Amino acid sequence: MTKDWKQAAAAKKQRINDSIPKEWRIDTSSLGASVMDVPSTCGLLSKSELDITNSSATDLVARLATGSLKAVDVTTAFCKRAAISHQVTNCALEFFPEMAMQQAKELDEFYEKNGRTVGPLHGLPISLKDQLRVKGLETTMGYVSWIDKYDTEDSVLTALLRKAGAVFYIKTSVPQSLMVCETVNNITGRSVNPRNKNWSPGGSSGGEGANVGIRGGIIGVGTDIGGSIRVPSAFNFLYGLRPSHGRMPYGKMANSMEGQETVHSVVGPIAHSVPDLRLFVTSVLEQEPWKHDSKVIPMPWRQSEHDATVQKIKSEKLTLGFFNNDGVVMPHPPILRGVDKVVSTLRENGHTLIDWKPYKHDYAVDLIQGIYASDAGKDIHTVLSASGEPAIPNINDLVDPTRSGADITTLWDVQLQKWNFQMEYIEKWNQMEEKLGKEMDAFIMPITPTAAIRHNQFKYYGYASAINLLDFTSVVVPVTFADKKLDKKNDNFNPMNDMDKQAYHGAPIAVQIVGRRLTEEKTMAIAEEVGRLLGNAITP
Amino acid sequence: MTKDWKQAAAAKKQRINDSIPKEWRIDTSSLGASVMDVPSTCGLLSKSELDITNSSATDLVARLATGSLKAVDVTTAFCKRAAISHQVTNCALEFFPEMAMQQAKELDEFYEKNGRTVGPLHGLPISLKDQLRVKGLETTMGYVSWIDKYDTEDSVLTALLRKAGAVFYIKTSVPQSLMVCETVNNITGRSVNPRNKNWSPGGSSGGEGANVGIRGGIIGVGTDIGGSIRVPSAFNFLYGLRPSHGRMPYGKMANSMEGQETVHSVVGPIAHSVPDLRLFVTSVLEQEPWKHDSKVIPMPWRQSEHDATVQKIKSEKLTLGFFNNDGVVMPHPPILRGVDKVVSTLRENGHTLIDWKPYKHDYAVDLIQGIYASDAGKDIHTVLSASGEPAIPNINDLVDPTRSGADITTLWDVQLQKWNFQMEYIEKWNQMEEKLGKEMDAFIMPITPTAAIRHNQFKYYGYASAINLLDFTSVVVPVTFADKKLDKKNDNFNPMNDMDKQAYHGAPIAVQIVGRRLTEEKTMAIAEEVGRLLGNAITP
Repeated sequence: MTKDWKQAAAAKKQRINDSIPKEWRIDTSSLGASVMDVPSTCGLLSKSELDITNSSATDLVARLATGSLKAVDVTTAFCKRAAISHQVTNCALEFFPEMAMQQAKELDEFYEKNGRTVGPLHGLPISLKDQLRVKGLETTMGYVSWIDKYDTEDSVLTALLRKAGAVFYIKTSVPQSLMVCETVNNITGRSVNPRNKNWSPGGSSGGEGANVGIRGGIIGVGTDIGGSIRVPSAFNFLYGLRPSHGRMPYGKMANSMEGQETVHSVVGPIAHSVPDLRLFVTSVLEQEPWKHDSKVIPMPWRQSEHDATVQKIKSEKLTLGFFNNDGVVMPHPPILRGVDKVVSTLRENGHTLIDWKPYKHDYAVDLIQGIYASDAGKDIHTVLSASGEPAIPNINDLVDPTRSGADITTLWDVQLQKWNFQMEYIEKWNQMEEKLGKEMDAFIMPITPTAAIRHNQFKYYGYASAINLLDFTSVVVPVTFADKKLDKKNDNFNPMNDMDKQAYHGAPIAVQIVGRRLTEEKTMAIAEEVGRLLGNAITP
Repeated sequence: MTKDWKQAAAAKKQRINDSIPKEWRIDTSSLGASVMDVPSTCGLLSKSELDITNSSATDLVARLATGSLKAVDVTTAFCKRAAISHQVTNCALEFFPEMAMQQAKELDEFYEKNGRTVGPLHGLPISLKDQLRVKGLETTMGYVSWIDKYDTEDSVLTALLRKAGAVFYIKTSVPQSLMVCETVNNITGRSVNPRNKNWSPGGSSGGEGANVGIRGGIIGVGTDIGGSIRVPSAFNFLYGLRPSHGRMPYGKMANSMEGQETVHSVVGPIAHSVPDLRLFVTSVLEQEPWKHDSKVIPMPWRQSEHDATVQKIKSEKLTLGFFNNDGVVMPHPPILRGVDKVVSTLRENGHTLIDWKPYKHDYAVDLIQGIYASDAGKDIHTVLSASGEPAIPNINDLVDPTRSGADITTLWDVQLQKWNFQMEYIEKWNQMEEKLGKEMDAFIMPITPTAAIRHNQFKYYGYASAINLLDFTSVVVPVTFADKKLDKKNDNFNPMNDMDKQAYHGAPIAVQIVGRRLTEEKTMAIAEEVGRLLGNAITP
């Protein structure tokens, strides 16, 4: 294949473009930097299709369940909007509206015949990162050498979503190897941020970020081993859940460094609201994923944890830690302002915010960088060699080839260090609670040192990756937008690269709400409250 | 230290023996093969001390909680009985009655002052395998080079048991390295089975098995990565729980191959009854171990799972799979009879027993043997070299030096194979349930191919280790005893070594009840019912 990698990549790219019906093609020749208004202005979507795609998933499934909406109509609307989305952001690695329409038709027939839905996601289109296998389709993960390999079975999560009634119509783009927080590969090239084509949509679930960001998708499935759910959520003004390992099924998905278990990649939803994240989580848990993926913990949705948090918010209020820098890289002014805004808003609303000193994040970031590089990039470079395609520019940032990799003894030592660090961190948390005489319910911190970033500029993964090492539950909350008038240069920080305030103007700013391990119910409820207080709880 | 390893070992052994007060020494010169009656006949224990040590832990904590028993009295009784136990089985690696009495005294004072217990185990002596660290004591794990290193903090489990009110008085012997299902090391030599000194008490938690077996302990803490809780339970006619990984805290314990996470060793109780196992588990979970050990899942005791199982036993009855051989090694006739007895007893009582074909256990056993040897024994041999002590005889059976070890790529491949195998296994389970139209609640299988075995004869770990690879919850239920009249030679099997029926006469026979991952509540409830129907639910 070596000689033909460009040909194979071009053919696949052409197939993706050809999968968009001619009547859904739009003129993209005179678009500006932001394409956010294209869906509503290009004329392809009817008013009802705009209404559908601008709804919440929670509303849609309710209307689908009463029969007031048909799966075929919802699917048509999202297929058309995703077609627009791909044309303006280059977000797809697979697009299959025909298969989607067939699925939708069958769901409508089932509903008509049985007078009920097949499950909690009946008729809801869900977009999938191109790691999730869908029977009959390719999963390239941005690797040229994986083109033309067609999946013979669904991933566990695909199968369970299907059982819950979800419709699949698009698989979204990723950076070659996944190990980059931007989205570029040699098959489709670069995905861009719909708010400004000069910005990255983030990565590695960047295709999801872009597609859900412009509402070509309503709930997208991403994965995260170093920020890959959270960065695209942050860069596209979306909510995102990085569950702790063991809550959501990753079985039979494609991955880089398959079998690497020192730090697990996790799978979770990206959406426009916490209720939509919750809809995803409850719907998957209802399918008892632990009966199909041995790594999933038999832990059903704990409504009592959710209810207790909601009650606490109303009565005694929350106690939340926060910090705006991890002691390694000082965030840009917009991010500092974002954290300030969250802190002051919460305080104004009666919650207690306390200084949480990030415990040895420098150590954590170094440790996890070593883990990413524990095979010295062998897995990635083996897959690249198979086609002869070159590596993308940023490949060496996260999987650092100057690290020599690990032998078994070194790996065991790293794993022991990880465990000890995790235990020290939760003891610090315990000590804080002892000092306070009450629980610290979660803590608030940046996700990246910058707002949505220009292409090829993403350098520092530590705000995200330290949380992966700790395996804490994290929920992304969109906060506001960078503003050249408000975000003045701060002379006290150590710049990572040339900062151009102009370049960030309008870029989304987010924080992550970090809870203890396996606290998805509680941490999402807190994130919902934070979003509500910020006025970001309901989007168009 | 190299030159002096014998001296260091002898000094430590002497210290252990010296820790037994003179007035607790007994004459062991004319004992027979079985020492089970020594505690009641040697004259050291008063009637009330015999009563206490012959009670259940559940009874004792109830009496301690009402104040009708004092912690000092209970502790004295168990210290004395453990002193006997060590003299006749050689089960101790640390014995510290003075520290225990001090702890008991403080607990009594607390009770007197506050009119309540400190926790659910108030005043109950718990024996600890010599991997659990107790502040101020040594943890040698049978390694000469670890002598004279005194622990500066408790292991997480030690600390939580202490918080729950447990009293510590003995740390029990293990085989050098832990990776053997017998118990022999160069410090104290060999621990023997109290039912017959020619038999092993099993291993690696063999000191626990012997000590709890003769009631020098009432609940013992063991660990299991390849049978090390289950084999000593089986060989000493005890109940034992191998919880799934993540249920009980292993943090800050000593271990072989620390940081190895491909298959986790787990920690759990060995006791005389399921209610006593349950007392241990509920007491530990009440201390919220997940707040102290990052590997523990925040899963409190699920009484509803227990209750539903009890209800099912009463109403619709259980559906249990079973097999008596794994397709690799045919068990000896006593074990086959044991499985038969369990199956027929359950059937007579209305439960449904179905043929469960062990799925690829040969593959599983080979895979896990590779995992045990993934550093080619380097960790173990490094620790041995530090003192110059020789390896114990069986060291190469489980950590096979003819395997070449693994590099990172190989390890990842093995980890992926493990995950896929686990998923295939639970799909087989699901398929069986679909076929049956109901749940298969657990399955029943042997733990070892033989009843309690003669020294140096333990060869095949597969009945235990396949379950470690699957990370299923397993509960050991004692069944009956080998009987030369009943257990005739079966010509159809492939003998592992020269069988001497005479040698096994009277040796304990057990089965394990294997539940899905993290089903401790349910699987213990099933095991309790099995034991009850066998007439083994209540021991002296």
